[in-house]
Amino acid sequence: MPIVVDHRERRWQVAEVAADLIAKLGIEGVTVREVSAAAGYSTTVVSHYFEDKSELMRMAYRVAVVRARRRVDEAAAKTGPRRLQACIEAMLPMDAERLRDWRVWFALWGMAVAEPALEREQRQRLKATVELVTGLLTDGAGGARAQRAAAARAEEILIAVNGIATQAVFDPAAWPPARQSAAIRAVLARLGEVSGAAERRTRRRRAG
Amino acid sequence: MPIVVDHRERRWQVAEVAADLIAKLGIEGVTVREVSAAAGYSTTVVSHYFEDKSELMRMAYRVAVVRARRRVDEAAAKTGPRRLQACIEAMLPMDAERLRDWRVWFALWGMAVAEPALEREQRQRLKATVELVTGLLTDGAGGARAQRAAAARAEEILIAVNGIATQAVFDPAAWPPARQSAAIRAVLARLGEVSGAAERRTRRRRAG
Repeated sequence: MPIVVDHRERRWQVAEVAADLIAKLGIEGVTVREVSAAAGYSTTVVSHYFEDKSELMRMAYRVAVVRARRRVDEAAAKTGPRRLQACIEAMLPMDAERLRDWRVWFALWGMAVAEPALEREQRQRLKATVELVTGLLTDGAGGARAQRAAAARAEEILIAVNGIATQAVFDPAAWPPARQSAAIRAVLARLGEVSGAAERRTRRRRAG
Repeated sequence: MPIVVDHRERRWQVAEVAADLIAKLGIEGVTVREVSAAAGYSTTVVSHYFEDKSELMRMAYRVAVVRARRRVDEAAAKTGPRRLQACIEAMLPMDAERLRDWRVWFALWGMAVAEPALEREQRQRLKATVELVTGLLTDGAGGARAQRAAAARAEEILIAVNGIATQAVFDPAAWPPARQSAAIRAVLARLGEVSGAAERRTRRRRAG
């Protein structure tokens, strides 16, 4: 266990433990007691950090958001023709880590249905993701009109990301990484964001 | 309360009550006791019909699936140039009833993360929906190759439906019915499933 220096850091660390448990057990299976035990704290300590389970769950949701954001930022820091594709793939459940974070979101979306605070969190995340992807598409360049057009393309990309994940999370066997990658590449090619040539070659291979 | 004639019908009726409660309260807020009370039965009777809460939740999931299927079938029974669009719109959260069923799915997807039986149910539903949409696209005509191509288009449509719903359920104000309808029309036009002319007119209006 790392040395914990302050309140916020310890809260975050407990929320990370909660996120991992949620991914494994769902929200119904996770209790403050279990999270405390897994984090190596007493229930009293954890209860001091979070008002209730609901607040702990919201923080766990943010943990998954921040982890995903970090993966996108890492991909964005690289250059090359596959940069955009890599950034979008960083959002898809293409490996165990990303699948874990998607499972956290799915578990908490189920809770968001009845929790306005979590629903707001989810709305906020959707908005932030559109902004993030718009930024990737424009690199901040262009006037208001170009930004609006990029935002519309970003929305389309996000619809595809969420739509693919909705299937891949529950049927990973039918949606191996290569299939997710090809699906998102097709979307980017259609939007003119990556060269259509590579996309057409891929399609021919799959059709052949 | 309608007269209940048999075991299966009564189970279904209880599951319908459960689905409506889940849409309102999420799975965490719903107990067998509450479902029993809302259905007008004793907990003992309901416990006799369902092995545990998990089985009741699975049946509630199916209730939402069957309701959605019925809406698609109703749209499919009509004819005219908007038939396909109407069938796909029948799957989107464009009114209170459809939103309610999406909320049931989201709530139960959260549970599916940790419940293999519910995860199987969800996989099965995804497969059945692809088959349903493939059938709408081909009307059963064409050889194996045409069927495969139609299935690929059906997958794309389903990705869009799930992707749009993922946003519209949590942010209905940003995704009014007209926006959902336009988004799905754009997908169908791109796939060559509806006339592109109407789609381009719509786009020009929105861009103007």
